[in-house]
Amino acid sequence: MRHLIALLLQNEAGALTRVAGLISSRGYNIESLSVAPTVDPTVSRVPLVTVGSDEVIAQINAQLLKLVDVVAVEDMTGADTLARELLLIKLRVPPPQVAAVEALLHRAGGRVLSAHPSSYIVELTATEAAIGEFIASVAAFAEVAEVVRSGVLGIARAEPPRRPIV
Amino acid sequence: MRHLIALLLQNEAGALTRVAGLISSRGYNIESLSVAPTVDPTVSRVPLVTVGSDEVIAQINAQLLKLVDVVAVEDMTGADTLARELLLIKLRVPPPQVAAVEALLHRAGGRVLSAHPSSYIVELTATEAAIGEFIASVAAFAEVAEVVRSGVLGIARAEPPRRPIV
Repeated sequence: MRHLIALLLQNEAGALTRVAGLISSRGYNIESLSVAPTVDPTVSRVPLVTVGSDEVIAQINAQLLKLVDVVAVEDMTGADTLARELLLIKLRVPPPQVAAVEALLHRAGGRVLSAHPSSYIVELTATEAAIGEFIASVAAFAEVAEVVRSGVLGIARAEPPRRPIV
Repeated sequence: MRHLIALLLQNEAGALTRVAGLISSRGYNIESLSVAPTVDPTVSRVPLVTVGSDEVIAQINAQLLKLVDVVAVEDMTGADTLARELLLIKLRVPPPQVAAVEALLHRAGGRVLSAHPSSYIVELTATEAAIGEFIASVAAFAEVAEVVRSGVLGIARAEPPRRPIV
C-alpha cells in the first residue's frame, strides 16, 4: 500500500542524507520526495511517498523519528488529507490537435505557460491520479517531450492540525 | 547566487543517498529538492535549488555527473527556463477577512480547496517570488496554520530540449 509521510527536518548539513540513507539501507522504496522551506527557517518539510504494508510503514516512521534531525513524522495517508501534485509538461502539438489539447487541459483545470506548437508547455495542479490520466490522454494528441512532476504534497484538512506542522 | 539544477537519476537503492551525501559532504546547501517519477520507469527527475558562485556550482555539477546513478545534470538557471512552484497553505480566516483573502488569491491565480474559516486551505502554483509575496500578503488578513511547498520545478522553454530529459 502507498503511504504519504510528512517529515519535519532540521536544516542541518547531512540531514537529508541520513533520512535517505535510513530508507535505502532498509530496502524501502521512495516513490517521490520533496524538501522545501517552511515559515520556520531552521526547519524543512519533507513529504514522501513510499510503498509497504502498514506494519513496515509504522517501522519506517519509528526509525525516522529516532534520527536526530527529524522533528516530527506524520503518516498522512487517508481521507483527511488533501493531496496535490504539480505537473509541468512539454508537448509537441501538431497544429490540427491544438484545440483537442486545450480542451483536455481546460477540463483538467490546467494552464498554458508557453503556446509554441513545438514547445507547448502546460502546468497542471491536481491529484496524482488526475495528473496520470492527463498525461495518458494528452499523449493521444501530442508528443510528450518532457515531464516534470513535484511528487505528491499533502496537507491535513483537520483543524487544529493533528500536529503543529508549520 | 541561486541555481536550479535538474538531475536525471537511475532508480537504484541508495541513489538519492549518494546525491545528498555528495552535496552535504562538500558543505553545499540544498534549499529545495524533489524526486519524482518520469515517463521512463527506471529514471527519476530531481530538480534542486542550491546557492553558490558559478564556479562552485560548476564543480557540484561535475561531481554529480561522476556518480554512477546520475544520468544527466543540467543547470537550468536562466531566462530560458520556466520555473514554477506549488504551495498548499492552511489559514485561519476571521469571517470579516474572507473576502480580502479571496481577492488576494484570485489575483495570484490560486484556488480554494477547503473553505472552512478555521481550516481554509488554498493551492497556488506560481513563481517562487509570487508564492513568497502571497504568503506575506495573506498573513495580514489570516493566521497561517500550515505551509507546504513543492520546491521549484523548472522546464526548459527551448525546443528541442538542450538535453533529452523526459
